[in-house]
Amino acid sequence: MRILLLNPNMSSSMTDTMAAAAMPIASKGVELVPVTATKGFAYISSRAEAQIAGAFALETIAEHETDVDAVIIAAFGDPGLKAAREQFNLPVIGMAQAAISMAAVMGESFSIVTFTPLMSRWYVDSVDDSGLNKKFTGVRTPEANKLDAFADQASMTTELLRLIHLCVAEDQADVIILGGAPLAGMASQFQSQVNALLIDPISSAVVLAESMVKLSTKSAFSNRHSRPAAKNSVGLADALADSLATP
Amino acid sequence: MRILLLNPNMSSSMTDTMAAAAMPIASKGVELVPVTATKGFAYISSRAEAQIAGAFALETIAEHETDVDAVIIAAFGDPGLKAAREQFNLPVIGMAQAAISMAAVMGESFSIVTFTPLMSRWYVDSVDDSGLNKKFTGVRTPEANKLDAFADQASMTTELLRLIHLCVAEDQADVIILGGAPLAGMASQFQSQVNALLIDPISSAVVLAESMVKLSTKSAFSNRHSRPAAKNSVGLADALADSLATP
Amino acid sequence: MRILLLNPNMSSSMTDTMAAAAMPIASKGVELVPVTATKGFAYISSRAEAQIAGAFALETIAEHETDVDAVIIAAFGDPGLKAAREQFNLPVIGMAQAAISMAAVMGESFSIVTFTPLMSRWYVDSVDDSGLNKKFTGVRTPEANKLDAFADQASMTTELLRLIHLCVAEDQADVIILGGAPLAGMASQFQSQVNALLIDPISSAVVLAESMVKLSTKSAFSNRHSRPAAKNSVGLADALADSLATP
Amino acid sequence: MRILLLNPNMSSSMTDTMAAAAMPIASKGVELVPVTATKGFAYISSRAEAQIAGAFALETIAEHETDVDAVIIAAFGDPGLKAAREQFNLPVIGMAQAAISMAAVMGESFSIVTFTPLMSRWYVDSVDDSGLNKKFTGVRTPEANKLDAFADQASMTTELLRLIHLCVAEDQADVIILGGAPLAGMASQFQSQVNALLIDPISSAVVLAESMVKLSTKSAFSNRHSRPAAKNSVGLADALADSLATP
Amino acid sequence: MRILLLNPNMSSSMTDTMAAAAMPIASKGVELVPVTATKGFAYISSRAEAQIAGAFALETIAEHETDVDAVIIAAFGDPGLKAAREQFNLPVIGMAQAAISMAAVMGESFSIVTFTPLMSRWYVDSVDDSGLNKKFTGVRTPEANKLDAFADQASMTTELLRLIHLCVAEDQADVIILGGAPLAGMASQFQSQVNALLIDPISSAVVLAESMVKLSTKSAFSNRHSRPAAKNSVGLADALADSLATP
Amino acid sequence: MRILLLNPNMSSSMTDTMAAAAMPIASKGVELVPVTATKGFAYISSRAEAQIAGAFALETIAEHETDVDAVIIAAFGDPGLKAAREQFNLPVIGMAQAAISMAAVMGESFSIVTFTPLMSRWYVDSVDDSGLNKKFTGVRTPEANKLDAFADQASMTTELLRLIHLCVAEDQADVIILGGAPLAGMASQFQSQVNALLIDPISSAVVLAESMVKLSTKSAFSNRHSRPAAKNSVGLADALADSLATP
Repeated sequence: MRILLLNPNMSSSMTDTMAAAAMPIASKGVELVPVTATKGFAYISSRAEAQIAGAFALETIAEHETDVDAVIIAAFGDPGLKAAREQFNLPVIGMAQAAISMAAVMGESFSIVTFTPLMSRWYVDSVDDSGLNKKFTGVRTPEANKLDAFADQASMTTELLRLIHLCVAEDQADVIILGGAPLAGMASQFQSQVNALLIDPISSAVVLAESMVKLSTKSAFSNRHSRPAAKNSVGLADALADSLATP
Repeated sequence: MRILLLNPNMSSSMTDTMAAAAMPIASKGVELVPVTATKGFAYISSRAEAQIAGAFALETIAEHETDVDAVIIAAFGDPGLKAAREQFNLPVIGMAQAAISMAAVMGESFSIVTFTPLMSRWYVDSVDDSGLNKKFTGVRTPEANKLDAFADQASMTTELLRLIHLCVAEDQADVIILGGAPLAGMASQFQSQVNALLIDPISSAVVLAESMVKLSTKSAFSNRHSRPAAKNSVGLADALADSLATP
Repeated sequence: MRILLLNPNMSSSMTDTMAAAAMPIASKGVELVPVTATKGFAYISSRAEAQIAGAFALETIAEHETDVDAVIIAAFGDPGLKAAREQFNLPVIGMAQAAISMAAVMGESFSIVTFTPLMSRWYVDSVDDSGLNKKFTGVRTPEANKLDAFADQASMTTELLRLIHLCVAEDQADVIILGGAPLAGMASQFQSQVNALLIDPISSAVVLAESMVKLSTKSAFSNRHSRPAAKNSVGLADALADSLATP
Repeated sequence: MRILLLNPNMSSSMTDTMAAAAMPIASKGVELVPVTATKGFAYISSRAEAQIAGAFALETIAEHETDVDAVIIAAFGDPGLKAAREQFNLPVIGMAQAAISMAAVMGESFSIVTFTPLMSRWYVDSVDDSGLNKKFTGVRTPEANKLDAFADQASMTTELLRLIHLCVAEDQADVIILGGAPLAGMASQFQSQVNALLIDPISSAVVLAESMVKLSTKSAFSNRHSRPAAKNSVGLADALADSLATP
Repeated sequence: MRILLLNPNMSSSMTDTMAAAAMPIASKGVELVPVTATKGFAYISSRAEAQIAGAFALETIAEHETDVDAVIIAAFGDPGLKAAREQFNLPVIGMAQAAISMAAVMGESFSIVTFTPLMSRWYVDSVDDSGLNKKFTGVRTPEANKLDAFADQASMTTELLRLIHLCVAEDQADVIILGGAPLAGMASQFQSQVNALLIDPISSAVVLAESMVKLSTKSAFSNRHSRPAAKNSVGLADALADSLATP
Repeated sequence: MRILLLNPNMSSSMTDTMAAAAMPIASKGVELVPVTATKGFAYISSRAEAQIAGAFALETIAEHETDVDAVIIAAFGDPGLKAAREQFNLPVIGMAQAAISMAAVMGESFSIVTFTPLMSRWYVDSVDDSGLNKKFTGVRTPEANKLDAFADQASMTTELLRLIHLCVAEDQADVIILGGAPLAGMASQFQSQVNALLIDPISSAVVLAESMVKLSTKSAFSNRHSRPAAKNSVGLADALADSLATP
């Protein structure tokens, strides 16, 4: 089984971090195919950026549609997910939807903790898309964008743990998602210091991608009644144009 | 006042139809600036197409951001609306959101009638985005895609009127939206034969675009706390890249 | 086009303030017809007052039904709106519904700021009626009824700006509605000091009343399937009794 | 204990029917005080009628506020209920809210059956006000207004039983409310022919009015934080003006 | 009329307290039949405990099904309620559902106050089951489990009154439910010190149990379409096994 | 990894069918531990049965808590799931919740098809518990309980396929869950004849149980803030009593 791990952010170091977190969780025989966006933004954080980077993500998925078994859109916020899921004939999951779905089966309520308030609105959109708002206790972030401020790992750890403890004590969250690619892999590091279940989004995406492959087949996806009609286009990357034009 | 009437579908005849329907409704002194997409699709009808065409729409809006006072995204389904509204420093409205918002102030319940079942799912998304689901009684369409089948205007009229009457009699709709650019301008033609208020989306978009300009200022939009941070990009059209990079 | 600007509060100075705020926003050729209630209350603030004043409002609208093209119920809280919209054969809008509807198309989330906590419950009812609760971040008011306390304009301005800034910083509101007739016209005064879009309800009502007139016709309203059946009555003002008895 | 049974419809025969249905259900020592509206309409069925008749109902309640222990607004649709509950210092219940509340504790899902489609929209409003929409399976009525058509009791019985059986078989309703004053007392007649629990609204109102009196005191109502402020008025009936002006 | 007052907690002193609070509210001629659980837990406070004690409650109800007219499950949280209501041919009410339903007809919004944070999650479940979340302003409790700490009645009173006052002042609750069997009967004691309506759950359960008996008949319950099919079982208490096996 | 596959129905043939469907989907190195209930019912289909069988399920889980890594409650309807998830220090999943969660990540909308209308209400409860109602298009079943009627596999297949096709054509479902243990394993058989994704609940439960084990640790579960307090009990099976009494 081959799974495309598509980072729609233009940061190969972030891709490496996520791949490193994902590898140990992948089943034997599963090959992760990490790909980093070559167009778009270093770090998507607005809706316009998600609209654009999501369209670029479709181009990359189209290039790999036939040589992988499933796709992970590896940015919390899941740019292009709804479009990709409708269009392509294989399972597609996003980091946010994966983490939220796993959180909802592991406890009664979940919070999201991330490193910057800039992402809150977009992350709440992801919860809306999941339909699981009722189990959601909110996003907690540092007051200001602290990504730059985290000169050392220690101060970031301190702040994140403070927020996590508030999710448990104030919001009564059973499960806490560490959202945002820069936090990939931290859940297992922090788990022993936290009285709630911590969820790592990239790991969640890997287990759900595998799960979807096991539960279905590519031909089942190809035969979906809800597949869009074939459509000609102008100005698109070749692979994507071909995919859209295929009946 | 200048309003960009951006058709994200690559069909100048459709743009002409919409502009013709929009002109009479525009206030004196309002100039409509019709622009037809040069990339994308003849007629957007899937989520992937909306993801891609919405990104192209952002390019066009960026080119006109400084020389118009408001923007209409002239496709029912509103590709790129959420992104554009967050990003640009002027009012942006979509045909679906405009029609739905006006329907909600003109009656208690509204239906959407359109010419093809292919659009239903995407149109329901628009209602979800508006938050007005509770007043929504559903989409009614011909059973199959009848656009091609409508060789003559008469058979299309007959079928649409049949659907409209069902919205009134079965769904108890007070207001009926004629969704989809090909139906632009038909509401006033059909009104005298219908026992409910008919809404024309492009006309709704024009009145709301004007309304938003009257109620605010471009500088108010520029000073929004919720404006995204400036961001560098790779591979974008120049005007859009510049807009995104502007603090 | 003639628009009835009906103030259901018995305060002609308040009517004057609202008319003064409304005039500049009205299109050329639009005549506003300001009318002040002669029965009821100086300032409606409870449900019983709204039930009673709303019934009085119907009397006044009935008197003007044939000589105006649209009606504005010019009290935030919209007494009698649902009844008037169902009964009369022309567009009717309330200040609350107008402001809320415009807020929902100008940003993702909106707050209401007003001058007294007495109105909060009634204003929340208006949001419920609009169906737009999901985009609503709440009402902010001074802790006690400060209307009397505002001896001078300056202290009121200070307090309102403090509340507005909390809506932006704490509630992440994109749009803020200045609710309540005494605040009519203040939005444009405060706009330059605020990092969000400020909405003036009476201005919103004017633009939407005009918009509804443009999008429909009185005969369309007269032919509505949902029009109530003709009904005889006892003890009602003549014009209202006549309107209700008309098939 | 004295309970005002206020019929806001101007029909003393309807009042008699309801009182006759209510008497046997009232506890020993409970005196029902039937009052028929002297202004308004023979049978309220629109929102304008409810706005007006609800205001008249407040006048009548104000006259009796000090000499009864609770109030029943005896019209399904509950004109003036929200206003009366906020304003007066004693328990107030409406027939619709009473029946809906009892239905919700007697089964998992409930339907409303009534004799005319004219009331459907208003009845759905009552369910909305109750907050119990999720347990509601809808209103079933004859296709046209059959009140006049029911020359004899037999044909009405046949039609109502047909509708009730559909509620059970199609909608899976556990409880069925026979809404509308003309159906008062029929629930017990029909019960043996129906495989679901039938609810009589006036009986429901009596048991809940008594229950509220038992659970609280008039002084508790008088001390409510949420009581509206005292207010002067113009043009109101004396007792109502006095009640509103009382601190 | 005989009403089973079943305390699913193994505490006869708690049963006595509740019976003492319930007796004065019961109508003349109503006999309360207090029964204390002989298996299970001293005080149910988790979902596992509710699952188990709810199953035990079914055993006890089955023993009394034919000799009582209604059943009160006398633990706030209502273990076994949904199961009992579906299974048995008589009215069944729980303390939580009773209090919540009465609160919803006595005011616009309600809070729950209880003596320990351990119960909050389970109590919120009860509100979810009632469907009345929209009128619910939340549970307020001492920060830690203070049941043991309340050596004297005075300190408990002080803390509960503090919480009640917060519900009124901060949450704008019209009605406050004193949840949890240990608080049975306190509502009337505290009422004169509180500016909102206080609700006693066991009293609410008594009035609603009587109300349900008055509105229906055992044979109506027996004929319900929604009654489960007869079913054989292994390992159940005899009376319960017999009840389940009865067609 | 060892996963308890607990069939709360007393049918070892059903356990065998489910184990046979589950084995091929389990990862290498995963041992399924099938256990059939020895008390309760042959086939749970009411809420009382779920209350009782859910309590029995807790007994069995308690016996295995220390020697397995995760638990599957292998009955669609998930008796005891909420209780078990809160109580035990390891991941617990039910067949319904698993299938619903996987359906929600594989498409936009899902239906449930099962073999008897008796289960519909209970299955809808499962969707309610999942929080995913908005993506749910309903349960479709044969009109009457056809389990007995399916003398041969062929007639059952025909009927189920008919229902599945209605889910696709009428309800626009992207994903269809074949609910109910007797249908275990049929999804893959039918997939090639269906234009939507078919989901097998027991397979879904296996992949999600494995996924939860990979994403967390037993010690993380043991340290949950939301763990219930230790509690003594009377009349419980020993292992369950011990589990509940463990701090």
